[in-house]
Amino acid sequence: MPQLRKDPVTKRWVITILENPKGPKDFSVLRVENKQDSCPFCMGKESSTPPEVMSYREPNTLPNQPGWKLRVVPNRYPALQIEGDLDRTGIGLYDMMNGVGAHEVIIETPDHHGSFEVFSVEQVFKIVNAYCDRYRDLKRDRRFRYILIFKNSGSAAGASLDHPHSQLIATPIIPKRVMEEVEGAKQYFYYKERCVFCDIIRQELSSGSRVIHENESFVAFAPFASRFPFETWIAPKDHKASFGEIEEAEQESFAQTLHATMRKLMKTLGSPPFNYIIHTSPCDELCADYYHWHLEIMPRLTKVAGFEWGSGFYVNPVPPEVAARYLKQTDSD
Amino acid sequence: MPQLRKDPVTKRWVITILENPKGPKDFSVLRVENKQDSCPFCMGKESSTPPEVMSYREPNTLPNQPGWKLRVVPNRYPALQIEGDLDRTGIGLYDMMNGVGAHEVIIETPDHHGSFEVFSVEQVFKIVNAYCDRYRDLKRDRRFRYILIFKNSGSAAGASLDHPHSQLIATPIIPKRVMEEVEGAKQYFYYKERCVFCDIIRQELSSGSRVIHENESFVAFAPFASRFPFETWIAPKDHKASFGEIEEAEQESFAQTLHATMRKLMKTLGSPPFNYIIHTSPCDELCADYYHWHLEIMPRLTKVAGFEWGSGFYVNPVPPEVAARYLKQTDSD
Repeated sequence: MPQLRKDPVTKRWVITILENPKGPKDFSVLRVENKQDSCPFCMGKESSTPPEVMSYREPNTLPNQPGWKLRVVPNRYPALQIEGDLDRTGIGLYDMMNGVGAHEVIIETPDHHGSFEVFSVEQVFKIVNAYCDRYRDLKRDRRFRYILIFKNSGSAAGASLDHPHSQLIATPIIPKRVMEEVEGAKQYFYYKERCVFCDIIRQELSSGSRVIHENESFVAFAPFASRFPFETWIAPKDHKASFGEIEEAEQESFAQTLHATMRKLMKTLGSPPFNYIIHTSPCDELCADYYHWHLEIMPRLTKVAGFEWGSGFYVNPVPPEVAARYLKQTDSD
Repeated sequence: MPQLRKDPVTKRWVITILENPKGPKDFSVLRVENKQDSCPFCMGKESSTPPEVMSYREPNTLPNQPGWKLRVVPNRYPALQIEGDLDRTGIGLYDMMNGVGAHEVIIETPDHHGSFEVFSVEQVFKIVNAYCDRYRDLKRDRRFRYILIFKNSGSAAGASLDHPHSQLIATPIIPKRVMEEVEGAKQYFYYKERCVFCDIIRQELSSGSRVIHENESFVAFAPFASRFPFETWIAPKDHKASFGEIEEAEQESFAQTLHATMRKLMKTLGSPPFNYIIHTSPCDELCADYYHWHLEIMPRLTKVAGFEWGSGFYVNPVPPEVAARYLKQTDSD
């Protein structure tokens, strides 16, 4: 008998198939590569991107020249544009505004073939550090109400280039899914006077069956109402609403957890396409008490079809307890 | 400058790229076929599905034997199961219930290579008729709170078999996306004392720039805040909350509109994978005044990536006015 499970934050229901759960070998994965010699993100091709916003570099090298270790540039095809006013308006019953925002690309390494399989913890720390730096800088622009940091890896996950990169989009409205999460967390807090994520983490650590990895400050676990096979969340054990607030020691601890968790996922599933997304509090919302930042990783093993689109109701053929068991058993070294 | 557009029902925002919009030829489409000789939905293979729930047949042919024109069977791998009680329970802060429901497959034709490119209007009418018959039958089961009818076509749209088929899933809870739509429509009604969909249809018919096809009773149009390139909705012009209430004359008119619209989409876009979903009122909700059933068609031309997953915020590279122009110009014959 399948089981319906409800995410306590967003109130999203999931059908979890308990019988004959699928394993990592039940999914076939296709990889499409773009050629290194035409890659605009490789070392020496600095002029094929817009001028860099920041970079971590070897001493005595110049911006937009070789010698970088990580580079942040505006997206050449931005979904939102940095200049202009919102100019809110309407036509009949329809409302709209200008697409003002920021859209940046974090080029994670000069190595075209880099990936979480080969990244050192130090490299992952650089990436996390860049996320924080850009987050804090953009948060000062009062036009932006949310900053979304995410990574698409593999063409099936929506990546158009193979060279390892993440993206950042700052939006002038708080996106709907974010508001849902914030509202869900707020309702829980008003009822219980506790953060729902703190309660989730406490329950996961105490049960242990869905925990994948932990260190002193962070835990990686398969969420109770996982929408996708091998969906994995990483959350700080201590309450903190905004990703932008994390200190250097927490960045290191987070990088260690992300490194270990991604290696487990890549090794277990044979390097599938994936997305990960940092969920953090909106820039101007006063939700420090009840929101709790975290990262959600979604390996792209199944196709999202009509049922999911029409209902927001997902069918997950791998119970999170089973996924966690596979991942826990896999060595992260 | 891209434009942000807000769907007046769900409050979903969309970034619409107005400059250099893409055309039908900018999308490459892959098709994967499963072999006809091993197809469980073909004529003569009736024993490879569970026993049929209903069928439209030649006179004097028996159930589960050849001679059918359309056949409805339970899904062999159901997401929800018809027998049992909900058995609501909780563990700590998590809530769950049993996966009770119905999951049926509507085999639309005996022809393995059938499709909207070759279906007659009469064949589409049979399909619509079957949707209605199954909807009305399942609505009588008081355990079900929503009945979702949808079609996945092509493997990129989540179809695991090539033989033309649709699906029906009856769920014991009202899915989240449905509730959002119902709530959005309710709020609009309380404010305006009018149905938001009626207002949308009135405005679309009056402006005309996003209308793709219309007949006396139905209109097909590209919604103002289209999430996907060439997204198309079909709605009855007269107010009606539930798909289950439509009379035979409306079924015919709907079949004619669906036939013409799908042919336009298939011809314009080169037979891409697609999903369509019937949006109707929940079984037991009293929303006759403010909800308005309709069909949403989503050609699968782009990949949904981290940004969309993390935000519920879509990037659409084809403005709906441009999509409607392409589709309107394409002959449906």
